[in-house]
Amino acid sequence: MVHAEDLAKQQRSISVAEFFEKNKHLLGFDSPTRGVVTTVKEAVDNALDACEEAQVLPDLFVGIRKIDRDIYRITVEDNGPGIMPEQVPYVFGKLLYGSRFHQIKQSRGQQGIGISAAVLYAQLTTGVPARVISRTGSRAPAHRFELMIRTETNEPDVVLHEEIPWDRIHGTRVEIEFKSTLAAKKRLLDYLRYTAVVNPHARIRAEIDGEEYLFERVVNDVPACPKAIAPHPHGIEFGMLKRMAGTSDQTLEQFLVEQFSRVGKKTAEEIVRGIGADGNMPAASLSAEQLKSLLEMMQATPIPPPPASQCLSPIGEELIRQGLDKEFQLDFVRARTRSSRVFAGHPFVVEAALGYGGKLPSDGAAQILRFANRVPLLYQQGACAITAAVAGVNWKSYNLSQQGLPAGPVLILVHVASTNVPFTSESKDAIAAIPEIEREIVLALQDLGRELKTFLNRRDKNRQQEDRARAICSIIPDIAAKVSEITERPAIDTAPIEGRIMRRLVMKKRTMDGMVEVSVHNYTSGTVDLTIYNLSPDRAGDADPAPFFVDAVGDEYNKIWKCTLPPDGAWRVRYHGRGGGTFDLRGIDKPEQVVVVDCDIDA
Amino acid sequence: MVHAEDLAKQQRSISVAEFFEKNKHLLGFDSPTRGVVTTVKEAVDNALDACEEAQVLPDLFVGIRKIDRDIYRITVEDNGPGIMPEQVPYVFGKLLYGSRFHQIKQSRGQQGIGISAAVLYAQLTTGVPARVISRTGSRAPAHRFELMIRTETNEPDVVLHEEIPWDRIHGTRVEIEFKSTLAAKKRLLDYLRYTAVVNPHARIRAEIDGEEYLFERVVNDVPACPKAIAPHPHGIEFGMLKRMAGTSDQTLEQFLVEQFSRVGKKTAEEIVRGIGADGNMPAASLSAEQLKSLLEMMQATPIPPPPASQCLSPIGEELIRQGLDKEFQLDFVRARTRSSRVFAGHPFVVEAALGYGGKLPSDGAAQILRFANRVPLLYQQGACAITAAVAGVNWKSYNLSQQGLPAGPVLILVHVASTNVPFTSESKDAIAAIPEIEREIVLALQDLGRELKTFLNRRDKNRQQEDRARAICSIIPDIAAKVSEITERPAIDTAPIEGRIMRRLVMKKRTMDGMVEVSVHNYTSGTVDLTIYNLSPDRAGDADPAPFFVDAVGDEYNKIWKCTLPPDGAWRVRYHGRGGGTFDLRGIDKPEQVVVVDCDIDA
Repeated sequence: MVHAEDLAKQQRSISVAEFFEKNKHLLGFDSPTRGVVTTVKEAVDNALDACEEAQVLPDLFVGIRKIDRDIYRITVEDNGPGIMPEQVPYVFGKLLYGSRFHQIKQSRGQQGIGISAAVLYAQLTTGVPARVISRTGSRAPAHRFELMIRTETNEPDVVLHEEIPWDRIHGTRVEIEFKSTLAAKKRLLDYLRYTAVVNPHARIRAEIDGEEYLFERVVNDVPACPKAIAPHPHGIEFGMLKRMAGTSDQTLEQFLVEQFSRVGKKTAEEIVRGIGADGNMPAASLSAEQLKSLLEMMQATPIPPPPASQCLSPIGEELIRQGLDKEFQLDFVRARTRSSRVFAGHPFVVEAALGYGGKLPSDGAAQILRFANRVPLLYQQGACAITAAVAGVNWKSYNLSQQGLPAGPVLILVHVASTNVPFTSESKDAIAAIPEIEREIVLALQDLGRELKTFLNRRDKNRQQEDRARAICSIIPDIAAKVSEITERPAIDTAPIEGRIMRRLVMKKRTMDGMVEVSVHNYTSGTVDLTIYNLSPDRAGDADPAPFFVDAVGDEYNKIWKCTLPPDGAWRVRYHGRGGGTFDLRGIDKPEQVVVVDCDIDA
Repeated sequence: MVHAEDLAKQQRSISVAEFFEKNKHLLGFDSPTRGVVTTVKEAVDNALDACEEAQVLPDLFVGIRKIDRDIYRITVEDNGPGIMPEQVPYVFGKLLYGSRFHQIKQSRGQQGIGISAAVLYAQLTTGVPARVISRTGSRAPAHRFELMIRTETNEPDVVLHEEIPWDRIHGTRVEIEFKSTLAAKKRLLDYLRYTAVVNPHARIRAEIDGEEYLFERVVNDVPACPKAIAPHPHGIEFGMLKRMAGTSDQTLEQFLVEQFSRVGKKTAEEIVRGIGADGNMPAASLSAEQLKSLLEMMQATPIPPPPASQCLSPIGEELIRQGLDKEFQLDFVRARTRSSRVFAGHPFVVEAALGYGGKLPSDGAAQILRFANRVPLLYQQGACAITAAVAGVNWKSYNLSQQGLPAGPVLILVHVASTNVPFTSESKDAIAAIPEIEREIVLALQDLGRELKTFLNRRDKNRQQEDRARAICSIIPDIAAKVSEITERPAIDTAPIEGRIMRRLVMKKRTMDGMVEVSVHNYTSGTVDLTIYNLSPDRAGDADPAPFFVDAVGDEYNKIWKCTLPPDGAWRVRYHGRGGGTFDLRGIDKPEQVVVVDCDIDA
């Protein structure tokens, strides 16, 4: 039998860098291909966060260049506030180090792992240190670093540190080299494109493998940077309360008012009274039993929800709509920003949009665009609460087909913004199945689904009417011919009747006895401004009305008339000539709204 | 503008305990309900690992008891080798501490996070320290601890340590209390049941909320404990090689032979020669460039795959089949253990089983049982490579219906055993999408699918034959009646014909002129051992053959005959009597195989 002493010899502490070196897939480095996307994502997320904090309009450069057989260099440069030189080694060379982990506010980065994971991956696959340049303002020099991570201790290893001249006044540039491929180029471009959609204030220039891409900013206002808030009394757990109270030098009442959000003097007094304590006792002196009662009382006391408008930064319905429409030219698009809600004390806002038609493929499953804190989510769609919520909606009741996900030319965008997005892993690919979040997504989608149904119903009704009209129009000429046969009189011109039924513009050209007559009748329901072009050998000198412009083109004459026709309005021109040539009608959006009837009897 | 100095003030190191306290869902503590399952799983996994290492037959106790409104106490006790007292605080009170992380072999735990995460969750939700008792043998006393984790530093906080008497000679007992519910009781029992299925050498006794469960061991051999192996030259990355060489005091050749698996002296010489180096140079003196060439040469040199049979411990086809059959009484069940393969230098083995019919529900998606290193996976089925592989097989070609997953009374079991199972998160719920692993699963399932197809075809053919026979038999009596009508002769007895067509046993009872005749004809394709019972007022003293047993029951006589009938064999008995009473035929599995024809003309 093996004894405990033998087993004890194997027991060892595991550094967090060792842990993630072995489990690098948890950080989004499961393959060289994916590593590129992850690295760009982490660096760009950091850059956007920093620019937002400093209220700078982001101007980013992303470069990916092959520098050896399977080695790529990834460069991300920003014009953010820069990083103090003494912080640089830790930000890039230590996992679990950062500024956003301990703050309760919406931010892209929240773990302090991302970019240092890329540095770790680089040293693992190529042994090349990361190169970082950062400058914090015109009065400071730029600092250049070459950095690695001591895996056994998770501490930075500064290979080189020097001051250098740099043309940027403030900003940060990071260069990382590792084994990779560009097989995921499409996904990378998707990431940049959708990042631009939800960050319309950012300008992103990319040079990928020799090709240039520019995602230009479309608004010039930096969104307000979310402000950190104090924890909410309803979202705190016992261990955290104990720690906060234990390290406090305040009285119990001060502690409640100043360390928690939404707790005023009155609420604090109510809570203190509820546990039969003295508001002037030091918070640090509360016993475990008192802390338990305090927690229960805090959670039982009605307190308004956390101030989401301060700490969250949703994209907004208008920007989402514009972004999607620009990208997909949709027939239908609506967006919803829901009110903020709370899960486990963390405020969150769900935004959703639904698009239909346009450039979307007409079959297959709906396209789902997922975002968390303004960052596109690219991998693990199947594991994401957003996907589960989309599949949980009964889309058939909104006239869409559905097999799990809805099918057809449908696009669904969901953005979850929170002070603490619950991702399913450190690689931040998918949102965990939190019932409160799923519920909000479902409600937003149902709301949009109802609007889509109205749109589809109206469109179907129009189509139906058109189908009926088309059916009637197809038999009218036969009826007219039959009538003419019976009455032994010439067949009447049925085009105006068809035009009236089909709600179209009818243009009639007729040449008879050396006279040309062109008429236009507006059977649509709106007023139209028309331009009529005729290119033919006729000079049309006696035209009534006279063309407002005549131009000789070779042997022919280009004649142009203009007219404005209200619904049911008509216009006519007559002149001597042989007719023929080409006629053209401009001023109508949809060419299929025009019926041209040609009756050149002379010819 | 906010400056870099202001931002720098927010920068802080994050302890791994703080990180996982905030992101506790990554460890499987997303809800109080799930927390119970996760805690039991981590403790039981550790217990089974420890017993395996010590080669002890595991005898486990799992207790879950409500001790307050929403507070449950979870107890797991084992008869393993125990833990040295100086190690106890670290094993339970520090995240990222353990014996299995640095070893290359199959084990249930591999991260050094699991059980300490439960301790962290307990102190967060209730503030109650974990209670641990451990004893390492008859000559040592038992040690009792009360432990917490200092969140800010991720170091153990020993609240109490004392020696106590304990009736176990060796083993460990841990008690953890936290906010919870028993809503996931079914899942918990599933975990225990499937753990028992793949660990047939374990005995698990559970007391859950007052109810007792026992999963008894079915084999008495402890499986051989996998042995740790050295890394394989094809699976190593630059950073790791650099670190290994840098800390080595060996010559280059010794280094290659002793630090890597499957490298002999000859291979080492070949590699050394390949990079033009001297095998006697110290490994630590290799330059970065030399290390790069060394790595390339190591990967280019053909080397046999890692010795999987040493470091892996698959369950085996026979045990999988037995386990499933016991649980589901399947009509069809086959299992496959594939040969070992390698991904990124880690050896792995895929085992799969396919079951059909029996107690499985006849509609809905197939039931999928997922296992990794002998541990059942309960959550995140949708995010798992196993599920993706199952959905990736074309089941329609094996005569199953399919909508993503196969549908019908189908059960699929997949076990992935590896020295490093690539989970999608620390909670170890799902296996990441590694192409090599997915491919092995698909191959195993396709192989089993072909066998299922053969089974289903044969079953369908049998059914078809039976349907045809049934159709013929249904018209035979009409034909016989018609023939009797035409020929004006009495109708013949069609039962033997039907019996012959349907392959059944035909028992004919006839009473005529005071004589009773009972005959049995075997039209099935097998030999049958029959027992014929008759309870009637007839004494049957002149029966030929004589019954081997006669018993008076009130006014009646119970008579028993036995006979063995080969296919097409017949048996007959005759005696004087009035007939009637009850006849019964035993020795046939399926009662529907018997046709009884009654022709009691006297009565």
